[in-house]
Amino acid sequence: MKPKLPLIVVTNDDGITAPGIKALMEVAATLGEIIVIAPDKPQSGVGHAITLNSTLRINKVQLNYGLKGFSCSGTPVDCIKLALNEIVPRKPDLIVSGINHGSNCSINVIYSGTMSAAIEGVLEGIPSVGFSLLDYSIEADFSASKKVAKKIIKAILKNKLPKNVCLNVNIPKLREEEIMGIKICRQAIANWEEKFDKRLDPSGKEYYWLTGEFKNYDKGNDTDVWALKNNYVSVVPTQIDLTAYTAIEKLKKWKFDISTWE
Amino acid sequence: MKPKLPLIVVTNDDGITAPGIKALMEVAATLGEIIVIAPDKPQSGVGHAITLNSTLRINKVQLNYGLKGFSCSGTPVDCIKLALNEIVPRKPDLIVSGINHGSNCSINVIYSGTMSAAIEGVLEGIPSVGFSLLDYSIEADFSASKKVAKKIIKAILKNKLPKNVCLNVNIPKLREEEIMGIKICRQAIANWEEKFDKRLDPSGKEYYWLTGEFKNYDKGNDTDVWALKNNYVSVVPTQIDLTAYTAIEKLKKWKFDISTWE
Repeated sequence: MKPKLPLIVVTNDDGITAPGIKALMEVAATLGEIIVIAPDKPQSGVGHAITLNSTLRINKVQLNYGLKGFSCSGTPVDCIKLALNEIVPRKPDLIVSGINHGSNCSINVIYSGTMSAAIEGVLEGIPSVGFSLLDYSIEADFSASKKVAKKIIKAILKNKLPKNVCLNVNIPKLREEEIMGIKICRQAIANWEEKFDKRLDPSGKEYYWLTGEFKNYDKGNDTDVWALKNNYVSVVPTQIDLTAYTAIEKLKKWKFDISTWE
Repeated sequence: MKPKLPLIVVTNDDGITAPGIKALMEVAATLGEIIVIAPDKPQSGVGHAITLNSTLRINKVQLNYGLKGFSCSGTPVDCIKLALNEIVPRKPDLIVSGINHGSNCSINVIYSGTMSAAIEGVLEGIPSVGFSLLDYSIEADFSASKKVAKKIIKAILKNKLPKNVCLNVNIPKLREEEIMGIKICRQAIANWEEKFDKRLDPSGKEYYWLTGEFKNYDKGNDTDVWALKNNYVSVVPTQIDLTAYTAIEKLKKWKFDISTWE
């Protein structure tokens, strides 16, 4: 009997028609048996949202190369839950998410549907990785990203990821010969400085568009932001335990007297 | 001049009409000047979603006690972003989210709109806390929860939270005299075992409802799940840095040779 190829689930948050997922499925198809399931419309910024108050649909779609895939009416996390419960013939060996059109470095991990799909994979005990290219364009060039993704997927299949950890991979917008290397990093401490664009609708009522500027406060040279600025691919091991362990002892000194509940 | 009362922003994910937020605004109003902004409809399970692809509306609403508040068409995180940028007269001293109808202990933190609002607060440098009662009912009794919330809010205002940390507070469904105390915990390692309820629509097409069962694999007696089972209020310090630091050294041993990009 031939050894089975690794089973790889491919998803994203830009939707099943995005060029980024096409690039990723092309890479994954050279390394394993693949199943594609992705949102039927763009879902950027949905984070770890799941669909609790409405129903979910899955539709078969015909992809390039005769590959079969599924589009889903829900979020990226819904896609993973549906894939694992309703679609895969066995437990997948890997979940790959992306390639996202745009950065998910630093604090963006928390808003990212791409990374939430990978985090959901880890929650289910499956090695998972999210890929993002620092180019928001629909016409982004994924050729260098494909080579990066291939190297990293091969490394995961070979070395195995630590338990309860997935990878957040961000790729600078460069040609492959300009990329300096692949760096293991920590998440930079940064946030978004929002600006709401306030407008009036045709009947004179106010509405808002969320916009903003990314602000990095972190001067470290071991962060993902630093790596990307210096032409490296950033790889941040990302965990599912949000406990701030260093705060536990400090908080234990707070005295909560419950002898009275005034 | 009288010292200013602390400015407290109140939000939730069950929507502005939920009894849980009414309970929390009643508590907060005894401790500071409050501004209420919450989703105009239930947003459970939206996690850290933000609204990027559509517009946002805010409407003034009249609440109990003549309090003025705002309903928002977006997610809990949108509410916080809008509050900080468009509504508050000065930087708030505290953001309180909840009281959620249902548990946000353990891994639920990652799916929770309630906790995502608190996490967004921390990202903006504002002390923040999310409260959840282990009772999904619309008719849940919040009287003990209100006393817990008051004790914890007072402690935060007095002691100050550690930097980049918010609190995830879960309250057992008990009368106040049955509560054993308030315990500082870590997040239990657990997940949801999904089950999709597959149905046929009137035209014979399949659709799904997401359901599932919470599975705790963590036998520790320092977890939030343990505390709640033993009639304690659980308080988990929750962080915004998802880096898995312990994995960094291990991953650095992976050799990425980029001299060839085959």
